[in-house]
Amino acid sequence: MILLYFKLARINLSDHSWKEEKIDDKLLRNFIGGRGLGTYLALKEIPKGIDPFDEKNMIFILTGPLTGTGAYESGRYHVVGKSPLTGYLGDANSGGDFGPWLRFAGFDGLIIEGKSEDPVWLRIENGDIKFNDAKELWGKGVHHTERIIREKVNMTSETMGSILSIGPAGENKSRIAAIMNDRYRAAGRTGLGAVLGDKKLKAIWAYGKRNLLKEMYDPKKFTNEAKKLTDKIMSNPVSQALTQLGTLVLMNMTNALGGLPTKNWTQGIYEKAFDISGEHLAESYLKARKGCWGCTIQCSRVSEVPEGPYKTALSEGPEYETTWAHGANILNGDIASIIKMNYLENDMGFDTISFGNTVSTLMELYELAKQGKLDKDKEKELLDLLNISGIEPTWGNKDAVIELIYLAAYRNKIGDLVAEGAKRLAEHFGKPDVAIHVKGLELPAYDPRALNSMALSYATANRGGCHLRSYSVAFDMIGSPEKWDPLAKDIKKVKGVKDQQDWFTIVDSLVICKFNVFGTGPNDYVEVIKAITGWEDMTGEELMITGERIYNAERLFDVQEGGYIDTLPKRLYEESLPEGPAKGHPGKEWLDFFLPEYYKLRNWDNGVPSKDIIIKLGLGEFLNR
Amino acid sequence: MILLYFKLARINLSDHSWKEEKIDDKLLRNFIGGRGLGTYLALKEIPKGIDPFDEKNMIFILTGPLTGTGAYESGRYHVVGKSPLTGYLGDANSGGDFGPWLRFAGFDGLIIEGKSEDPVWLRIENGDIKFNDAKELWGKGVHHTERIIREKVNMTSETMGSILSIGPAGENKSRIAAIMNDRYRAAGRTGLGAVLGDKKLKAIWAYGKRNLLKEMYDPKKFTNEAKKLTDKIMSNPVSQALTQLGTLVLMNMTNALGGLPTKNWTQGIYEKAFDISGEHLAESYLKARKGCWGCTIQCSRVSEVPEGPYKTALSEGPEYETTWAHGANILNGDIASIIKMNYLENDMGFDTISFGNTVSTLMELYELAKQGKLDKDKEKELLDLLNISGIEPTWGNKDAVIELIYLAAYRNKIGDLVAEGAKRLAEHFGKPDVAIHVKGLELPAYDPRALNSMALSYATANRGGCHLRSYSVAFDMIGSPEKWDPLAKDIKKVKGVKDQQDWFTIVDSLVICKFNVFGTGPNDYVEVIKAITGWEDMTGEELMITGERIYNAERLFDVQEGGYIDTLPKRLYEESLPEGPAKGHPGKEWLDFFLPEYYKLRNWDNGVPSKDIIIKLGLGEFLNR
Repeated sequence: MILLYFKLARINLSDHSWKEEKIDDKLLRNFIGGRGLGTYLALKEIPKGIDPFDEKNMIFILTGPLTGTGAYESGRYHVVGKSPLTGYLGDANSGGDFGPWLRFAGFDGLIIEGKSEDPVWLRIENGDIKFNDAKELWGKGVHHTERIIREKVNMTSETMGSILSIGPAGENKSRIAAIMNDRYRAAGRTGLGAVLGDKKLKAIWAYGKRNLLKEMYDPKKFTNEAKKLTDKIMSNPVSQALTQLGTLVLMNMTNALGGLPTKNWTQGIYEKAFDISGEHLAESYLKARKGCWGCTIQCSRVSEVPEGPYKTALSEGPEYETTWAHGANILNGDIASIIKMNYLENDMGFDTISFGNTVSTLMELYELAKQGKLDKDKEKELLDLLNISGIEPTWGNKDAVIELIYLAAYRNKIGDLVAEGAKRLAEHFGKPDVAIHVKGLELPAYDPRALNSMALSYATANRGGCHLRSYSVAFDMIGSPEKWDPLAKDIKKVKGVKDQQDWFTIVDSLVICKFNVFGTGPNDYVEVIKAITGWEDMTGEELMITGERIYNAERLFDVQEGGYIDTLPKRLYEESLPEGPAKGHPGKEWLDFFLPEYYKLRNWDNGVPSKDIIIKLGLGEFLNR
Repeated sequence: MILLYFKLARINLSDHSWKEEKIDDKLLRNFIGGRGLGTYLALKEIPKGIDPFDEKNMIFILTGPLTGTGAYESGRYHVVGKSPLTGYLGDANSGGDFGPWLRFAGFDGLIIEGKSEDPVWLRIENGDIKFNDAKELWGKGVHHTERIIREKVNMTSETMGSILSIGPAGENKSRIAAIMNDRYRAAGRTGLGAVLGDKKLKAIWAYGKRNLLKEMYDPKKFTNEAKKLTDKIMSNPVSQALTQLGTLVLMNMTNALGGLPTKNWTQGIYEKAFDISGEHLAESYLKARKGCWGCTIQCSRVSEVPEGPYKTALSEGPEYETTWAHGANILNGDIASIIKMNYLENDMGFDTISFGNTVSTLMELYELAKQGKLDKDKEKELLDLLNISGIEPTWGNKDAVIELIYLAAYRNKIGDLVAEGAKRLAEHFGKPDVAIHVKGLELPAYDPRALNSMALSYATANRGGCHLRSYSVAFDMIGSPEKWDPLAKDIKKVKGVKDQQDWFTIVDSLVICKFNVFGTGPNDYVEVIKAITGWEDMTGEELMITGERIYNAERLFDVQEGGYIDTLPKRLYEESLPEGPAKGHPGKEWLDFFLPEYYKLRNWDNGVPSKDIIIKLGLGEFLNR
């Protein structure tokens, strides 16, 4: 029997040193890996109240016990650090190939601390780490950065490792900068790319021959159990729909419910929804499907605009959220232009959800300025900045958006403010309510007024306005595993959201893909986990308690930073949608109904975990960080 | 009587110190100021053979005795340093307001040496110089940089000084980066913006109340003489044409002679010449005219594209050379797109002549690649780089050019090679003859096969392919002060070119505008110079000898660097234009006729100044640098 432990590399960028560090079996069982382990490390090591750009901020790039094992949908990694966008705990998750390759290279995760004087990139190969000068990479986009590193390490194919990097957005500390990998994949949310930029870590190449099967408690059992999991997930109709149309399968569905946020969240129905749907992509610019490492769902789209002003290379995307953010959200029905925006934002290294929302915020601010509804000095400043930027951000102005990508990436002209994200942009011009965000994080593509459980999901998501802490859209719209009425004031939805939040925490800790949600649950993973770890007495119930532990640990970090309030943006809370099924229902109607019950269920006092629940979950040591 | 001297500031960027330095009367009389003084300083202080990005390279930003005096067309400054584009002596000249304001701030010039660790900007005010942190400006375009500095120094109007800066192109050491001032003005040629970038000097604000009139030998005489000069220049018909249509008055004229370089110099006639002419600009996007400090010719155009994909702010330009380089040269007849390119290149800080030529070089390389005419590995590299760049640089593809501006400014993808200029780009892909340059400097908008004296002008221009060492177009096309047959094998043209070279050297040293060439000559300036300097025995002949001294001094610097050959690019030398008046005349026919006589006249041996002429001109001390 092999005793499970996690081997991390603690990388100090200040003095370019590193050392191995082991995470023992007990800690791992309590926090699993990925998001859970990252949260533990954040509580333990990131000092309370620091500026996210303080040298003491840290970034944890972590895999989980399932990463790269061949247990289904295990091609991902998770990043945790203090967010420059929200000021709270930030975390993000990305697919592609990097997670598995980091493990194959000999490390289950990286603890990144300090700041380098000059830009560096890391070469991680078979248990060794080398620091390399990245001056020539600084300023370059993600695509070019990967190209140069591929040449340097002689990475002639995708079977020779994987690269993680930041683009100019991260270098220039845009608060909506992503950490990118495999050219088109993003650990997008909460702006952690800016922290890597601040630390001057431009890129990481990971490669190695470590055989994870050999380190498993029971490899034979693992193989059998992984096969069962695969069969279960692949036979689920939602998985099949994802294969067919990718995440863009959602566009027409959300629109039909009147919940497709349109024109910066002032409408819920977009008349050109079909033009930006998966169905339309399939018949226009789609070239192929692609999957993360070891996944056969192949939900990623591969597209290309072959000519014209929006020409791109063959590249991955666009996903549903990106397409919405640059489509319905800004009244742009031209999917070719969206493919181009996605392509350029990947290269510059932006979180496309945050970027699109920031653009729609700018468009609304511009409209207000033209109507004389900004303070005079703010109106002058905005119009002057837009003027020297040579753009006019009217609704649907595609060319303006494309130029904004470069302006924001390099913080030039109006781009300097766009790089700050929607909240700061709107506040700067004295109209905070124009930015649609929760806790500073811009919202994704589901209007919580039309899918009412999402009102609770958004308001209580630890990292801010997020659909991936709980994706109750699965119930409210997709009907998987069961169908809920999206407008029902049904109190059972509260437990549904809470359970999903806890389970998703485990999903992000194992680290597997959220698309398992449609076909599997905690009990489906128990045997696979046992086979890997040897935790023979593991149960689904334990996993759910562990999920609750991690969710509370995140919350503890956040409330300790101060000013943390569970609510919806004013527009969604107070106003109702102008048409469609949800007309007449402001978000207040849903949130005020769900939230008290949620707090009761969580044993939280107005969003703050009670001492009881913290002690019960074994987090007492963090009560007085 | 006031004894004339020049007060320079010697600025050391390595240790952020500065001191005053005086240039005495004798040295000044020998080298005048501006380009002449800069050449003297370069010979004296820049070590032979250094890399242009060596810490020991220097930049001299100099005015001349006439700068800011109100003697006509005196709103300019001159920059000298070793060129990263050519490897020889680089120099460039710019209008606007900066030159005068530098003098008003208390300095007749700046000697810039060393390298700063971090980006800095200089505040030069009433005889004092302060070093300021420019970290927040680094990465920003010229327009935004000026905007921020204006706020910092409370520069509420153009009467509160002037700003010089570099854009991202200079920061990222593009070899075709300009030094910019007053937002839209460029000391463009020979890539000296990259040297400021290498030295991490981002910007300079100059302001002060120095009264130059008080320092003159005979202010009253000066006022009278300056008035005469103004009257003479303003009554010249060419000056009036420049007022009317700006430099774009040339487009239709050059085209009519079959000398408008088209499709990267493969044709001399562009069917859409009118669409990019001054006449067309006047009836489309022109908003106003503007002049440099104290000039009433107002040859600068102020234009604006109010909407659409090529929307710009109201801004200066485009000039003839820029419009040609991004028009006929790349088969683009859309002047709106050219205004946009000009606007963006000004912001990024590029030399627009070099940039347009580099784009046409890329377009031709792409065409060759598609035809299978590149080496296979080079073809693959080019197509791969273009592919990840998401552009297809077919002839006339405006959108590709606009994207290339950002790609090159930040050295991303194919832009990394475009930033190197046409010569290095073409050499990289194994087709050196596709780049149309002399000594590494891309050519301006006159085909020397159709305006034959320009064959000699280009080949012997010290700084490389340039129309401003001698502008014999004035004779061959404009007929000012006299008309020559542009295709005549007339040996008098040799002296015409040589005299113009010498006189233009003085023009750049005094420092005044080249547009005086159409109405005035050396003798017209003698009295004004006397009034300022007190050099009572000054004559027009002395000025011409001084010009010859400076021209030889430049040449001495260059030949000492090695590999310096006076010739034309192979395409222009060997091939003839396919149609129009010049059809059947390769450049060889002209150059081989003119060049021997030119060398005789100059007392040069195959381009190398004889010891005799060097000694005679008082440059002996530089023979063994």
